[in-house]
Amino acid sequence: MTKSKKILITTVPFGEKNRAPLDMLESNNIDYVVNPLKKKLTESELEDLISDFDVVIAGTEQITRKVMDKASNLKLISRVGIGLDSIDLLAAKDKGITVSYTPDAPAPAVAELTIGMMLTLLRSVHVSNLRMHSGDWHRFFGRRLSEVVVGIIGVGRIGQGVIEHLKGFGNPKILVNDVSTKPKLGIRNKFNCERVSKEYIYRNADIISLHLPLTSETKDMIRKKHLLSMKSDAIIINTSRGGIINENDLYNVMQSGHLSGAAIDVFDFEPYDGKLSEIQRCILTAHMGSMSVDCRTRMEVEATEEAVRFLTNQPLEGIVPEEEYAVQREGL
Amino acid sequence: MTKSKKILITTVPFGEKNRAPLDMLESNNIDYVVNPLKKKLTESELEDLISDFDVVIAGTEQITRKVMDKASNLKLISRVGIGLDSIDLLAAKDKGITVSYTPDAPAPAVAELTIGMMLTLLRSVHVSNLRMHSGDWHRFFGRRLSEVVVGIIGVGRIGQGVIEHLKGFGNPKILVNDVSTKPKLGIRNKFNCERVSKEYIYRNADIISLHLPLTSETKDMIRKKHLLSMKSDAIIINTSRGGIINENDLYNVMQSGHLSGAAIDVFDFEPYDGKLSEIQRCILTAHMGSMSVDCRTRMEVEATEEAVRFLTNQPLEGIVPEEEYAVQREGL
Repeated sequence: MTKSKKILITTVPFGEKNRAPLDMLESNNIDYVVNPLKKKLTESELEDLISDFDVVIAGTEQITRKVMDKASNLKLISRVGIGLDSIDLLAAKDKGITVSYTPDAPAPAVAELTIGMMLTLLRSVHVSNLRMHSGDWHRFFGRRLSEVVVGIIGVGRIGQGVIEHLKGFGNPKILVNDVSTKPKLGIRNKFNCERVSKEYIYRNADIISLHLPLTSETKDMIRKKHLLSMKSDAIIINTSRGGIINENDLYNVMQSGHLSGAAIDVFDFEPYDGKLSEIQRCILTAHMGSMSVDCRTRMEVEATEEAVRFLTNQPLEGIVPEEEYAVQREGL
Repeated sequence: MTKSKKILITTVPFGEKNRAPLDMLESNNIDYVVNPLKKKLTESELEDLISDFDVVIAGTEQITRKVMDKASNLKLISRVGIGLDSIDLLAAKDKGITVSYTPDAPAPAVAELTIGMMLTLLRSVHVSNLRMHSGDWHRFFGRRLSEVVVGIIGVGRIGQGVIEHLKGFGNPKILVNDVSTKPKLGIRNKFNCERVSKEYIYRNADIISLHLPLTSETKDMIRKKHLLSMKSDAIIINTSRGGIINENDLYNVMQSGHLSGAAIDVFDFEPYDGKLSEIQRCILTAHMGSMSVDCRTRMEVEATEEAVRFLTNQPLEGIVPEEEYAVQREGL
């Protein structure tokens, strides 16, 4: 390297439970700055910070064309995680900025969290816990996984992980739908799942779990009419991306008494402080799907390795495939 | 039957989600009374109610010698569930009262709830949920099951069910201990678990889950010194019987910051309204382990079938085995 290259690490926390990615940068004599605001950056905060950097190791903050306009040295966005909805891929391509990601690393953690939420919701553990902490004893009836029909919308890495875990619970009936029209990995044969329409899942599943990217196709995909078409005691879980379920509609529908529970880990705007907090039977968590120590470390290490490869002229291994650009080109 | 026999059903709820057991009694022209107080009966409430009845279909209320003294017609106690700590078996034997139970029915529901609690505790879902409901966003780090060592104390029907489910989560390392000194069902070979002492589990497990009966051996089995010997970020789960973990010691130890979480479904006195409710990272539920609709229905139906068999002079199928009497004879 003729001149010192610099990395901006925007995602937080970073290197907190395991310093391996920071050690990797230091042992390669690569200068880096970790997000000084220690929170998800807004577009304008990122514009102010990004100007000098060659590489961004990125979280879910918006990296728009406007942000890239301020980043004349930027050559690589190395995304810690899988979702690309926050990055304007077409602008990156126009500006010759390479984008990489770590699509496999978060999946095991998200899949486990999802199963935990299913079991918690089915047994009303969250409601009993809230009430017991206020001195109110009530024995809630619940259901077991083998008693219910589970609908999985999105059968990529995470959806498939969820299905694998479900098999250990007396083989519940599983309905699947994928936004992709291409048959994927022989899901039906591999997992003994029935492939159906989204609408069929809405009407027939007891648990509906979303494992989708946020795209123009999935934005606001589940609105009032879809929620109302679900069983009155259905459960809905979103550990994928905020914006896929319309939050306001979910609030209104649950407020009216429809749906027996929900678990929402992802929101339109994060940190979330909206009205769903009024609804006791709606579990709310702070975008923690991938936050197991092992998966988070793997994501950070993989994204950092990619940055090191880039700055030391090694071949990259996590480049975002062309089909992700096609998704954005077709209209988000 | 020369004279109408009467059944007192003490456990509540009963026949609520599925009327099958009540229909069974009615179609056999058997008179019954369901607990009019709709709550777990105290000893003296039960003494007042029990006098005329031939059969009790029982929950977890105390059926002591004193209670039996008031029940001159009583010939069968048919227990909805598995635990026998609430029944003075020796007094029943003295008085010629047969005791039956439904030991298999609750196991699948308790095992599933336990896995849900493990996943919830490992990812701090309960704490994030409480905090999000007060508008406080914090991304908690967590652990996955395959990263931790799970200690199962008690490897009967429920403990084995928990181990079966765990296998679907990347084969976490499992340590097992059973109060019985007899080697049980070849646990080690069947489940690839390591059989160790309780003390070894206390010191080395990240998650400790209890699946034990309440006996003189297990009463107050886990006290302050045992809790303090656990890892500072260990998790403890009790879905078996109140009284096995000393509640006061658990409160004091968690209040001091030790242990990363706990889930307690069973208590010394139920309904519980004690101090553990002050501890946010302690999940509290209202003795709901067996409360899935399917398992609860199976328990109620099996206990009712036994009562019908008794009153129609058919051979019984759920008689409590002699070893349960031996447990009480040796000292509770």
